[in-house]
Amino acid sequence: MRIQSVIHILGAIIFFLGISMLFPLGFAFVSKGEELFGLFLAFVITVLSGLLVMKFVKGKNDIRAKEGFAIVSFGWLMMSLFGVLPFLLTGSIDSFVDAFFETASGFTTTGASILNNIEALPRGVLLWRSQIQWIGGMGIIVLSLAILPMLGIGGMQLFKAEVPGPTHDKFTPRVRQTAKILWGVYVLISGIEIVLLKIMGMSLFDAVNHTFTCMATGGFSTKNASIGAYNSAYIDIVTTLFMFLAGINFTLHYRALKGNPLCYFKDKEFLFYFGILGAATLFITADNYISNYENIGTALQKSVFQSVSIGTTTGYTTANYINWSSTSQLILLTLMFFGGCAGSTGGGMKIVRVLLLIKSSFVELKKSIHPSAIVSVKFGDRSIPNDIISKVLAFFLLYIGIFAITAIIMSFLGLDIVSSIGASAACIGNIGPGLGSVGPVCNYAHIPVFGKYVLVFCMILGRLELYTVLVLFSKSFWKV
Amino acid sequence: MRIQSVIHILGAIIFFLGISMLFPLGFAFVSKGEELFGLFLAFVITVLSGLLVMKFVKGKNDIRAKEGFAIVSFGWLMMSLFGVLPFLLTGSIDSFVDAFFETASGFTTTGASILNNIEALPRGVLLWRSQIQWIGGMGIIVLSLAILPMLGIGGMQLFKAEVPGPTHDKFTPRVRQTAKILWGVYVLISGIEIVLLKIMGMSLFDAVNHTFTCMATGGFSTKNASIGAYNSAYIDIVTTLFMFLAGINFTLHYRALKGNPLCYFKDKEFLFYFGILGAATLFITADNYISNYENIGTALQKSVFQSVSIGTTTGYTTANYINWSSTSQLILLTLMFFGGCAGSTGGGMKIVRVLLLIKSSFVELKKSIHPSAIVSVKFGDRSIPNDIISKVLAFFLLYIGIFAITAIIMSFLGLDIVSSIGASAACIGNIGPGLGSVGPVCNYAHIPVFGKYVLVFCMILGRLELYTVLVLFSKSFWKV
Repeated sequence: MRIQSVIHILGAIIFFLGISMLFPLGFAFVSKGEELFGLFLAFVITVLSGLLVMKFVKGKNDIRAKEGFAIVSFGWLMMSLFGVLPFLLTGSIDSFVDAFFETASGFTTTGASILNNIEALPRGVLLWRSQIQWIGGMGIIVLSLAILPMLGIGGMQLFKAEVPGPTHDKFTPRVRQTAKILWGVYVLISGIEIVLLKIMGMSLFDAVNHTFTCMATGGFSTKNASIGAYNSAYIDIVTTLFMFLAGINFTLHYRALKGNPLCYFKDKEFLFYFGILGAATLFITADNYISNYENIGTALQKSVFQSVSIGTTTGYTTANYINWSSTSQLILLTLMFFGGCAGSTGGGMKIVRVLLLIKSSFVELKKSIHPSAIVSVKFGDRSIPNDIISKVLAFFLLYIGIFAITAIIMSFLGLDIVSSIGASAACIGNIGPGLGSVGPVCNYAHIPVFGKYVLVFCMILGRLELYTVLVLFSKSFWKV
Repeated sequence: MRIQSVIHILGAIIFFLGISMLFPLGFAFVSKGEELFGLFLAFVITVLSGLLVMKFVKGKNDIRAKEGFAIVSFGWLMMSLFGVLPFLLTGSIDSFVDAFFETASGFTTTGASILNNIEALPRGVLLWRSQIQWIGGMGIIVLSLAILPMLGIGGMQLFKAEVPGPTHDKFTPRVRQTAKILWGVYVLISGIEIVLLKIMGMSLFDAVNHTFTCMATGGFSTKNASIGAYNSAYIDIVTTLFMFLAGINFTLHYRALKGNPLCYFKDKEFLFYFGILGAATLFITADNYISNYENIGTALQKSVFQSVSIGTTTGYTTANYINWSSTSQLILLTLMFFGGCAGSTGGGMKIVRVLLLIKSSFVELKKSIHPSAIVSVKFGDRSIPNDIISKVLAFFLLYIGIFAITAIIMSFLGLDIVSSIGASAACIGNIGPGLGSVGPVCNYAHIPVFGKYVLVFCMILGRLELYTVLVLFSKSFWKV
């Protein structure tokens, strides 16, 4: 492990995180908010820390896959550690663990909150809270489409269409190029959403905040009642649309913007994503119309919104779905596991993995009938190599294993069975609201300190596709 | 598919099932029970049906793997269909679906019951109810140690120690030899249990019944309060011991009886099985001592019994564990998934699979760190081929998938979330009692008719290691 180079880059990450604090700081300055001093202090500490690290620990241009794992994992951790400063120094959140939970929940685009009264926060801090999700979303897109494929994780390089950007062999230039292109797409779609939300009646401040958290499938809101606070079908529709877009592979958006809007319908993962969300929405709408809402319009509006919100792992709410039927809740729980498309900002296991898992189970059945036949999993017109399939299957196994262990830990800390399952699934899948006592109108404030740290670990684990973090716990990783 | 040969053998199975009814029939005759006529009618119908089928559909000695799948799957189904006769014709159970549920639950050694008052049944019928579990257990041992390995399922042939019996190439003689040896072991241990239970204070009738259902890890009892009815530490200890034995690979018992009692401790699966049950028991005892029982002895007695009962997928109860903490319940739920050892009468995913799953996830992590290294899963001193690992991973995937779908269906039929999860896990894992409204002091009587059929399907699916049944749904299976 070339630790110096890793630390140097972490310093740069901290530095840029500090620079990004200029946005809420500028806002607080213009609006003359009481939070100005606290934000300024956070900005100074973060920027200086980054600079000091960069100055005293010199790195070389010698990043390999190993260092990549370390940078990504510790990068997310460092951002979450320094990201707490605006909350703590403005007095918005008192305890460190709560601020850390909120910040990690932000950077991992989870959206789980410990705040009982969101609206009491200074607006500059609210902006910071939304912005960390947007930054987290940016990080994830680059991570899943540029960095992880080079680290050989997720297997995106083999079964997905080509990622935009020039093909160089060198690690850094390619990441930079891809990042630029995809961030362009991300910023563009974000801009459109801000305009549309403003037109539909949100204040500019709210429109910016919700765009930040929507594009990242994060789900933090500036309102205690989340999107439900606006009680507006127009805002529901726009938000649903952009959550749906944020859950799609961003290379598809790039290609669509390049003049090929039909590319979506040639992408198997997109079609499956659309199909699953559609089927879940239809069922839940029917179920809700029969049991909970008198008006078919209301049933549809609430059901579509909530299915897409949970399915894309955003986590906004317009309805308290823990009052819905057990079946609707279990379907939402299933959607939490499926998550968004690979290369989107969505969490969960990712639709492409679910698709490969289903295909591989059919292949195994075929093999049982014809033991001598050579069958392989097809994706489009490509055969997926067996080691990719093994990796996806092992990912599923690890995901379920970590989910189960976390649920057991949560129950040990006093949560009931349904809440334990909900909290675990919602954090490892980066959704935010879960079931039971961590449901849509509740929050994570009541979880004991130890439980908050466990859930933060789960959020980061889930966000970084498990392997990126888990390899760090191996002895052989640290050798050389 | 050589359908005639399959049907011929199914006829033979039905015939022998009928013959086995002579045991409860003889009992009813001696004890002059009112159920005599009903049992006699069931006996005549079953034996005649078997004979007629065998006479009119002639089979040849041409059984291949394909026919093996069909015989096993339809064999279990046919036994469950004819096994209802003693219940229906004695008037012990009124509705067909209930009798079918009870019988399938018996033959799959699940132990889920629809009876509200077990003790009201005539004793001959109770004996039949216990006996079908014992027959199911016999079937499972032969299935998992002789038939499935030849069908290439479960991979037992590759990673398990040799199965006793001469090595012939012909299908039938080998199965017969292995069956004889293992049944000998099964009968011998059953005999010992009967004697011990009698000594500990059970009536001979109860001792025979409980031995039948214990050795099969079935869990049907002649008492409404299950083993808890005896309120005897001695009976608890004997039952715990024999449940534990029934959850072990029967080839190990065979080798131990052949003069090598240390073979258990050389078997990795056994050690892991012992370790998991031990750890679960320790935790649950501590948890119960703190929260539920004042006396450490009582806490230990109840916790050991219940952990072993659920962990071996037997399902006897001496305590209403749904009053225990959420953590203890979630641990029991986890044990339901793990199940017993391969080659035992236990259900669930089987310990050896769990072990391979854990090992394979470590291997995948290693591969992430050293992408070029060739690492394989080791079991003892053997390397497990990748296609076996894929099969085990796909098994896990299918298991979890079927579990989730069944839970959603159960919730749709009106069960709450915890009960839905419990019913699904308890039926696919062949445990019996689940959580919530299908917990230890409840039963499955209240499940709607459709739900009962779904659960029966799950029991058979789980009992026959998924693949055996699922391949029947493939078109290509039926060709040729």
